[in-house]
Amino acid sequence: MTVQSKATTRPSSVTTGPIAGSRKIYTSPEGRPDIRVPFREIELDPSAKEEPYWAYDCSGVYTDPSVTIDLEAGLPPIRREWLAKRGFDRLVPREVKPEDNGNIGADKLVPLCPADIPIYGARPGQMVTQYEFARAGIITEEMIYVAHRENMGRTKMISGAEERVADGESFGAEIPAFITPEFVRSEIARGRAIIPANINHPELEPVIIGRNFLVKINANIGNSAVTSGVAEEVEKLVWSTRWGADTVMDLSTGRNIHNIRSWIMRNSAVPIGTVPIYQALEKVDGDPTKLDWEVFKDTLIEQAEQGVDYFTIHAGVRLHYVPLTAKRVTGIVSRGGSIMAKWCLSKHKESFLYERFDEICDIMRKYDVSFSLGDGLRPGSNADANDAAQFGELETLGELTKVAWNKGCQVMIEGPGHVPMHKIKVNMTKQLAECGEAPFYTLGPLTTDIAPGYDHITSAIGAAMIGWYGTAMLCYVTPKEHLGLPNRDDVKTGVITYRIAAHAADLAKGHPAAKLRDDAVSRARFEFRWEDQFNLSLDPDTARSFHDETLPKEAHKVAHFCSMCGPKFCSMKITQDLRVEAERMAGMDAKSAEFAEAGKEIYLPQAAAE
Amino acid sequence: MTVQSKATTRPSSVTTGPIAGSRKIYTSPEGRPDIRVPFREIELDPSAKEEPYWAYDCSGVYTDPSVTIDLEAGLPPIRREWLAKRGFDRLVPREVKPEDNGNIGADKLVPLCPADIPIYGARPGQMVTQYEFARAGIITEEMIYVAHRENMGRTKMISGAEERVADGESFGAEIPAFITPEFVRSEIARGRAIIPANINHPELEPVIIGRNFLVKINANIGNSAVTSGVAEEVEKLVWSTRWGADTVMDLSTGRNIHNIRSWIMRNSAVPIGTVPIYQALEKVDGDPTKLDWEVFKDTLIEQAEQGVDYFTIHAGVRLHYVPLTAKRVTGIVSRGGSIMAKWCLSKHKESFLYERFDEICDIMRKYDVSFSLGDGLRPGSNADANDAAQFGELETLGELTKVAWNKGCQVMIEGPGHVPMHKIKVNMTKQLAECGEAPFYTLGPLTTDIAPGYDHITSAIGAAMIGWYGTAMLCYVTPKEHLGLPNRDDVKTGVITYRIAAHAADLAKGHPAAKLRDDAVSRARFEFRWEDQFNLSLDPDTARSFHDETLPKEAHKVAHFCSMCGPKFCSMKITQDLRVEAERMAGMDAKSAEFAEAGKEIYLPQAAAE
Repeated sequence: MTVQSKATTRPSSVTTGPIAGSRKIYTSPEGRPDIRVPFREIELDPSAKEEPYWAYDCSGVYTDPSVTIDLEAGLPPIRREWLAKRGFDRLVPREVKPEDNGNIGADKLVPLCPADIPIYGARPGQMVTQYEFARAGIITEEMIYVAHRENMGRTKMISGAEERVADGESFGAEIPAFITPEFVRSEIARGRAIIPANINHPELEPVIIGRNFLVKINANIGNSAVTSGVAEEVEKLVWSTRWGADTVMDLSTGRNIHNIRSWIMRNSAVPIGTVPIYQALEKVDGDPTKLDWEVFKDTLIEQAEQGVDYFTIHAGVRLHYVPLTAKRVTGIVSRGGSIMAKWCLSKHKESFLYERFDEICDIMRKYDVSFSLGDGLRPGSNADANDAAQFGELETLGELTKVAWNKGCQVMIEGPGHVPMHKIKVNMTKQLAECGEAPFYTLGPLTTDIAPGYDHITSAIGAAMIGWYGTAMLCYVTPKEHLGLPNRDDVKTGVITYRIAAHAADLAKGHPAAKLRDDAVSRARFEFRWEDQFNLSLDPDTARSFHDETLPKEAHKVAHFCSMCGPKFCSMKITQDLRVEAERMAGMDAKSAEFAEAGKEIYLPQAAAE
Repeated sequence: MTVQSKATTRPSSVTTGPIAGSRKIYTSPEGRPDIRVPFREIELDPSAKEEPYWAYDCSGVYTDPSVTIDLEAGLPPIRREWLAKRGFDRLVPREVKPEDNGNIGADKLVPLCPADIPIYGARPGQMVTQYEFARAGIITEEMIYVAHRENMGRTKMISGAEERVADGESFGAEIPAFITPEFVRSEIARGRAIIPANINHPELEPVIIGRNFLVKINANIGNSAVTSGVAEEVEKLVWSTRWGADTVMDLSTGRNIHNIRSWIMRNSAVPIGTVPIYQALEKVDGDPTKLDWEVFKDTLIEQAEQGVDYFTIHAGVRLHYVPLTAKRVTGIVSRGGSIMAKWCLSKHKESFLYERFDEICDIMRKYDVSFSLGDGLRPGSNADANDAAQFGELETLGELTKVAWNKGCQVMIEGPGHVPMHKIKVNMTKQLAECGEAPFYTLGPLTTDIAPGYDHITSAIGAAMIGWYGTAMLCYVTPKEHLGLPNRDDVKTGVITYRIAAHAADLAKGHPAAKLRDDAVSRARFEFRWEDQFNLSLDPDTARSFHDETLPKEAHKVAHFCSMCGPKFCSMKITQDLRVEAERMAGMDAKSAEFAEAGKEIYLPQAAAE
């Protein structure tokens, strides 16, 4: 195979360069120059007299102009030294088999990513997972990294940050004013947070998922039998993290699945999740009844060696729950759930995922692959929300959580789905109770079913609410949900929408630093610092282009009005003038005549609007 | 002036024709064939074996192909006979003055809409408002109309509708299983609902706003000094009601304001709201300090005679509240609020809107113009939410509500604005308490400030929540909020987004019929009735086009999969097969061998995906 023949399927280029109005910076926790945590520094107009704003940054080195991106070489393995010190076994890698790529013909086979990394695994009895280290009282580099990362805004930037008092409603979350590595350790040890971080993913910039930390979001990518290829998928990874995806799930189901994943893993700075049953099913020609433990186990090992950070495992779909879905309006809508339901029902046997759960734990522990216990029976419509099947499965997930913890594994729990607003809170309450406060990771939920084409919005409502109630990570929904595969624009819209939901949740929970960004935007808005308003926003490009549609000239970027009201009617302008006056008139006792004299020209002349 | 010379500024065409997959129907309450209430009938695929779905319809006769639209003649005056029986005085219309149109030159003057309707007013002491009739125990045609309209889904369509039990959380709202005209009357008499219906707007299709009815949404249109003209504004009215705006506010501030409004009023089937202070300010050359009672009174009469159905009156912006805004991050962001604050402060006098409130009531009562008591001190940022200025004004609005009721007027109350999630509920609770349960009408609220370009979404989260808590009408926010004037696409996006929020609220409140539409969509989805799913959705055009991006062929409209998972992985397909089996195996006691024998071919062959 020559390079040329692959030109169309190999990723040739991805989006790089800084996000408008910001630059990549790195800072290190005191005494640990080997730990470099990225932020996006947004410089403000000098008139603001404010320090630059630092934003949390999921975008990896793709937004760092000083780094040359070479997809074949993969990203810098920032964790290599940390991992090396832990002394894991170097393994002889499992050999790639034709069925790993769907037995695709050689002419259509995407090559493996040539980045060559050694494969490791823990020896029996050796501590390997973040959970095990945490339980043993050991603070890992990953814990130090996320503590520093989460403290964004808590220690510097805008004066008074330390004195801020959280005024939110946290529903029992215990968000500290300052995050120490020890706090991170204790949360992981209690099972309330995870750092999905496969030891075979040295390129990872660690991220923590738990309700006492910033709410995270996940974006899904993946090719399917119908559309999309490798170049598109790697770019979707880069693109979605550029706009703020904290983790990415690769839900590919088509061919070339193994080799495409090799490109994704070596070029991902964020945790990658997968649903191994999808690939296992490909290996048995798509027939769920042919699935067995051996093919599933082989797939777990295959993907764990590639570096996948978390696996969705639908071990809660037990045989006796399946009939509970028969009367539903929309039955089983989880792919994994329906595959396992089909398997159970056709054999009239208990799920092998449930029966072999101990062995699954042992495999995942060996590489520190985190569990994302799948909600295979989640409701696919508001009509089916909170029913016996869904809650029965959740109870089983609670049981399995404790098994996984006992085995040393990190665990989070997946949740619905489609739930009307008044039925959302009980999902959170029950999840916390059943699953020992393990992090909840929900899809939406969609609060109504009547708006295909806008399900990023129907679900952002539910996502913001359940995030407020305590969900640690929100799985995004794009405008194409229920209709088709998302394209580049859809992915961006989904990510920004979910950053909104996550941030609204952080604000409402009383995160001590979340409102700094809102306030910075609001000050910029009030002071007509248009560029600052754009640059501080989640999507500077869109904000700027919307503004420019009606007022494109550069002069308008400093205008004290916008096209909504025009120069004569701008309330912000009027208020600024008012404020000056109100202060001057302190106590309201000056005479009105005095005001008239001093303030007669408060509007911009009409000419300024031309 | 010839017609030709006006060709660019006169509305020449608007969007007409049915919304995809539906047709306009009319039904009448028993015994009242003179009252014809429109619905959109959505016919479903015969395989569904379901009656057609009837959707609430705000779109006017623009979606009725049997009606010829003539913008110069205006819409059919469906209320004319009802109003005629009430015996109001025919008035000599107030003469149009040059300042009504901003003293624009004759060459740029948009002509008045030539539709000629007589102008009426109530005689002193004569009952005129819906509130007065309701208090007197009289059921008007408007009340019968809205009762019939609101009962959509409660009486027909899908079997079992009567037996449905509301399972929502209504926070004290009392939503009946069935709406009678007497219930409507009693709600209006208690001040808990209004039907904005100026007696000079005979073209109106009445709509009720109150928390025991369907949650309504408002769309804003209006030209400004910087952009847009009459053709664009009338089309925005038609366009926004096509997609579901229950009322429309004309917030024009530019020139030609009177004459553009004449086209809007004569061609609007929905209640039109305005903010009269905007036009009053135009009449005094944009200088708030030149405003006085005479110019404001003249403007109220001018607009009331044109048929405006509700006025935003910022009478709660009292002198002593103004200094409370001085320390805010974003000061006063309401245009009306800032104008009045400027007036009060510059003269150091109490607001003339507050001092003349009795006289304002008398004018508005005469034509049955409803009050929308403006929240001129609403927060413009999360930082300013729920502060002393905002809540002080709300208390004054409560005081004014009772004054207006005593004068016989209908009243609703405007609310914020920018509020983080955990501070939303107290807004609703306080509004109900202060304002005697008068309907609340909120703008959003936006739950975070960091996403200009996506404020339809930041605000849809807050709108859905406050709608659930009891807000009767939600004022939309478009993607252009804070950045520029919305165009046609933005208006549609804003309206659909707010229909989502309103519907999510109806569902959560336990509206007895709201979930019928969700369930209809979900059944269509589960049964792969793609066309039904599109047609039942809020925006069939977008749903269809999104689907067709990846699977354009007609054959895919009946395919039992979509491009997200492809044919082999469709969970819906697997579940349908499962359901058949689960039922057959009733009780789970058949042997797995039996299943394997009967169900070996459950997937579509791969060829179906080509």
